[in-house]
Amino acid sequence: MQKPLILVSNDDGITSKGIRTLVEVMQELGDVIVVAPDSPQSGMGHAITVGDTLRLEENFIFDGVKAYECSGTPADCVKLARHFVLRDQRQPDVVVSGVNHGSNTSISVLYSGTMSAAIEGAIEGTPAIGFSLCDYGSKIDFSHTKEYIKKITLQVLSKGLPKGVALNVNFPPKRNENIKGIRICRQSNAKWVEDFDERYDPNGRRYFWMTGNFVNFDKGEDNDEWAIANNYVSVVPCEFDLTAHHSIPVLNDDWDILR
Amino acid sequence: MQKPLILVSNDDGITSKGIRTLVEVMQELGDVIVVAPDSPQSGMGHAITVGDTLRLEENFIFDGVKAYECSGTPADCVKLARHFVLRDQRQPDVVVSGVNHGSNTSISVLYSGTMSAAIEGAIEGTPAIGFSLCDYGSKIDFSHTKEYIKKITLQVLSKGLPKGVALNVNFPPKRNENIKGIRICRQSNAKWVEDFDERYDPNGRRYFWMTGNFVNFDKGEDNDEWAIANNYVSVVPCEFDLTAHHSIPVLNDDWDILR
Repeated sequence: MQKPLILVSNDDGITSKGIRTLVEVMQELGDVIVVAPDSPQSGMGHAITVGDTLRLEENFIFDGVKAYECSGTPADCVKLARHFVLRDQRQPDVVVSGVNHGSNTSISVLYSGTMSAAIEGAIEGTPAIGFSLCDYGSKIDFSHTKEYIKKITLQVLSKGLPKGVALNVNFPPKRNENIKGIRICRQSNAKWVEDFDERYDPNGRRYFWMTGNFVNFDKGEDNDEWAIANNYVSVVPCEFDLTAHHSIPVLNDDWDILR
Repeated sequence: MQKPLILVSNDDGITSKGIRTLVEVMQELGDVIVVAPDSPQSGMGHAITVGDTLRLEENFIFDGVKAYECSGTPADCVKLARHFVLRDQRQPDVVVSGVNHGSNTSISVLYSGTMSAAIEGAIEGTPAIGFSLCDYGSKIDFSHTKEYIKKITLQVLSKGLPKGVALNVNFPPKRNENIKGIRICRQSNAKWVEDFDERYDPNGRRYFWMTGNFVNFDKGEDNDEWAIANNYVSVVPCEFDLTAHHSIPVLNDDWDILR
């Protein structure tokens, strides 16, 4: 049987510890190709590069793995992989992205470059998974995520995913120990309340750093924030159809400017 | 009665023709405040500026309107408006974004900076609308959009929107004439098939321009692509909960790694 072809990307850049963890696990599962940003792209959401040029260069940091670094966003990387690097060739069986340095639970999925690479895979009709570790810092430890990354990816390779769905997978930090298991969740109802740290540069011109406080409004137990807080791996199936279908009949009823 | 407070943003930048059109209509409806990017931000999706600084400067290009230009993305602009410019003050009654130079129908909503500003409004609990004109070029004519922008904004101001919903409004081009009316739609099933134009710079290094062909798979008549093709204004209610709720029971049934 042919080994699966696995496309790996991320948003922390090709030299990050998280993508190395992901590549190591994927090498056990199939043939791996990496197309990832040449520099960190956190917070890039579903940005793509229009009105500017893109660079793509071969990169040799992973032994025995064909890898490319790209000047663009995570979504650009998946588009370049699909429509240039693998043009007229076999297409990936799964797109995996991450492992992100930091949480992408709840509303953060919207701002997440990691998840934009996965969602771009889903748009292309390929099963796709974004992995994120809810921990930060230079000493971040990904070791406990490996067995779950392997289990979840194997499950997706064997069973597929519903059409147009990408998984948003988050892991509790290593220090919590004894992960209780894997939970299928919905995106929790939470948001970032921003604070802008106002400063002045050496020329006296004002600038800002955005800092945010995460506020969780969700009292349910079926969401990703609850799962992480209770030491489960959270898996949220995400879709790229943003239509609020439930609102269509509401507007058709309410509005008096339709005919 | 107090006039409504209207926050205006966009992704083509504060000097664009489209935002001027929008500001003109909004001045008829209430008190206007503008916080918009200082340069074009097309394709920025829901990007935010993390790990870098932001600039915000007062701008005087609109007569009688308080306006600010920001170095960041459209989502940054709405966050700065909410949490810095209007901090501890009255919050906007509606957030409007655009008018975008170009279509944001179908899958383009994901890549759209215009819609990210509107969705950021919805996250903050404010009714929000992104407006886009399905036309391009330096001679783009927004005049026919004004009556519909006014009608739709008044409707939203008087009736509100379901919680967490932002409207994605697209207009047919002026040359089509005789718009037939307004349709509430779902996001059509379509995608961009990218092509990468490969070139070499004067130093012999390779670079790419991304060019895309839009492919519509949708045979329905209840979607935004159909509406625009048939000369209707399309209105898609969008939400920021990306959960594919229908897939949760599917995965809970299918997967054998849960417990």
